[in-house]
Amino acid sequence: MKKILLLAVLALPVCACFAQEVKEDFQPSELNQPGQQYPMVNSQGYARFRIQAPQAQHVSVSLGLGGTHGGTDLTKGEDGWWTGTTSTPMDEGFHYYHVSIDGGTFNDPGTANFYGSTRWESGIEIPAKDRDFYALKNVPHGNVQQIYFHSESTKEERVAFVYTPPTYDKDLKATYPVLYLQHGWGENETTWPLQGHAGLIADNLIAEGKIKPCIIVMTYGMTNGVRFGGLGGFNFKDFETVLVDELVPYVDSHFRTKANKDNRAMAGLSMGGMETKNITLARPEVFGYYGLFSGGTYAPSDIKSKDQAKVIFMSCGSKENPDGVTKAAADLKAAGFNAYSFVSEGTAHEFLTWRRSLREFLPLIFK
Amino acid sequence: MKKILLLAVLALPVCACFAQEVKEDFQPSELNQPGQQYPMVNSQGYARFRIQAPQAQHVSVSLGLGGTHGGTDLTKGEDGWWTGTTSTPMDEGFHYYHVSIDGGTFNDPGTANFYGSTRWESGIEIPAKDRDFYALKNVPHGNVQQIYFHSESTKEERVAFVYTPPTYDKDLKATYPVLYLQHGWGENETTWPLQGHAGLIADNLIAEGKIKPCIIVMTYGMTNGVRFGGLGGFNFKDFETVLVDELVPYVDSHFRTKANKDNRAMAGLSMGGMETKNITLARPEVFGYYGLFSGGTYAPSDIKSKDQAKVIFMSCGSKENPDGVTKAAADLKAAGFNAYSFVSEGTAHEFLTWRRSLREFLPLIFK
Repeated sequence: MKKILLLAVLALPVCACFAQEVKEDFQPSELNQPGQQYPMVNSQGYARFRIQAPQAQHVSVSLGLGGTHGGTDLTKGEDGWWTGTTSTPMDEGFHYYHVSIDGGTFNDPGTANFYGSTRWESGIEIPAKDRDFYALKNVPHGNVQQIYFHSESTKEERVAFVYTPPTYDKDLKATYPVLYLQHGWGENETTWPLQGHAGLIADNLIAEGKIKPCIIVMTYGMTNGVRFGGLGGFNFKDFETVLVDELVPYVDSHFRTKANKDNRAMAGLSMGGMETKNITLARPEVFGYYGLFSGGTYAPSDIKSKDQAKVIFMSCGSKENPDGVTKAAADLKAAGFNAYSFVSEGTAHEFLTWRRSLREFLPLIFK
Repeated sequence: MKKILLLAVLALPVCACFAQEVKEDFQPSELNQPGQQYPMVNSQGYARFRIQAPQAQHVSVSLGLGGTHGGTDLTKGEDGWWTGTTSTPMDEGFHYYHVSIDGGTFNDPGTANFYGSTRWESGIEIPAKDRDFYALKNVPHGNVQQIYFHSESTKEERVAFVYTPPTYDKDLKATYPVLYLQHGWGENETTWPLQGHAGLIADNLIAEGKIKPCIIVMTYGMTNGVRFGGLGGFNFKDFETVLVDELVPYVDSHFRTKANKDNRAMAGLSMGGMETKNITLARPEVFGYYGLFSGGTYAPSDIKSKDQAKVIFMSCGSKENPDGVTKAAADLKAAGFNAYSFVSEGTAHEFLTWRRSLREFLPLIFK
């Protein structure tokens, strides 16, 4: 115990020396709970945390790499508040994290929660230079609505979120194409509407005239409880049944959709990309546009016929495996498919990569 | 410090003796995060908590009254998990709570968060005997959608949640009456859709033929930042402007409403009741039906003319001040008003009182 404390003390000068390079222009993260000052972010992307726990022995956050156990160790002040700054700048965009208090895992009381890693995690936003494309502006807004649909295969009422474009309630004769958009492992149906800003991205693209209005459907994809294990045992068939045989018919019967393959797309991030690949290939008659966001690639041999997919889109962050998606797109193009790749500059397997991927994917589909 | 630990130790036999009366039929709370066993609730309404914090000195939860500082003290086991059971049964329904770890305030990692007390709090549900009226069933479901509306008075894009009934997207010529439903102090626009189950309550009443389909609009009511203070400085006028001059016109222009006083109601819980009273009286031409849920009462002298309000509804829990609403309704009836009171049996100033109040209020309005 003494040794750990000693290490913490020895770590102080280190933090101090980093601190000298850190600009003291910290602002509260935009995801903070109302009235909360911390966590904060500075113009360089450093994150600073402040947690009250006067009698705690050890407090750290899972972001950063400078801590004795990874993450960032916080240091207790006279006032009983623990404070610490990441030892390096964070990538731009959204990051999940949690707080370790005396060996237990909790969320930062300063910020809102976002579902990831099969739990509601803390979230922090490092303002991205290009954040305008998902900003909330005074433009016509579509609505994101929660729907319940009955699922015979899972014997329950299941939830989905449906984005309808700004014009949806204006011209009641108009019908719309539909994108089915999936979250990643450990996330759920709230992920794309909240940390993904799917609705705001579509609102802004529509307002700029870059896309035609469409409907976006987001539901829970970890149907068979892979939730608490790895992906090894994941059976895509269970979700394929819920999505294609239950949700698609529900959406086509409850919303004004163009109910055909040429007006139906599927995309997903990470595990949602794996679902997209499996389901689009298993049901070639259902979806006409494919999007894998940090979610693998298609090979020419995967796809039965040239006209099976009108658009094949594959993306990832520059800190992932950009050559993989670039080469896959080149191979597909060489084989005569309408394929695209996108690499998100300066991002890893995180949400800014996927927000940008959606921004790039939407203008390519439903043409 | 030693003394506090000693107290904790002395408290053990006490907990133990209570434990003998407690039925060991605990089940996970229905609000728990996926896969989480704790917190648990038994058939008597006792709540049991289990939190991992191996090196913590003191862990307690804010529910219950048996703790050294109120709430419930948890006791550390060999495995580093802290466990404790409330010393008495809890009232049926939803309760907010939080966890104290070594003097800091955190949420229980086992359960989901709900916005209350101006922060995202932990929530636990003690199953109510009459819970069927807000249960998720295989009946036609309306949708709860998030909308953004531009507010000139606050110079921002504001959020509201709008419940549209199951038939809304079927008969595109139909128009609907609208209830504006407000949360309480420290809560926000997510409160009625989530812990209030407003949409499910309406779905079930519609399915049973007890009410005609209506739209329910829920927005944030603490417009002028009373959020972090008491109610003393709360200026109802700011919210009156947002609600009546900005949101009502937005809803009437974006949804198929019956846009007149005879088809527009306002109700609210606690502080939302105070808002309802102030705004309905200040704008008698806007709302035709008034509902105060644990939110005060109207006196005959408050109301200008007999035909100002078609229905006046006042409610509270039997553990609040039931005589107040009963007498107020009697006085209003004696004065010739169409007034109703409702007392929620066995509940206090909490959400089961307000779920039941909504169930009682909806069938009385829009006739």
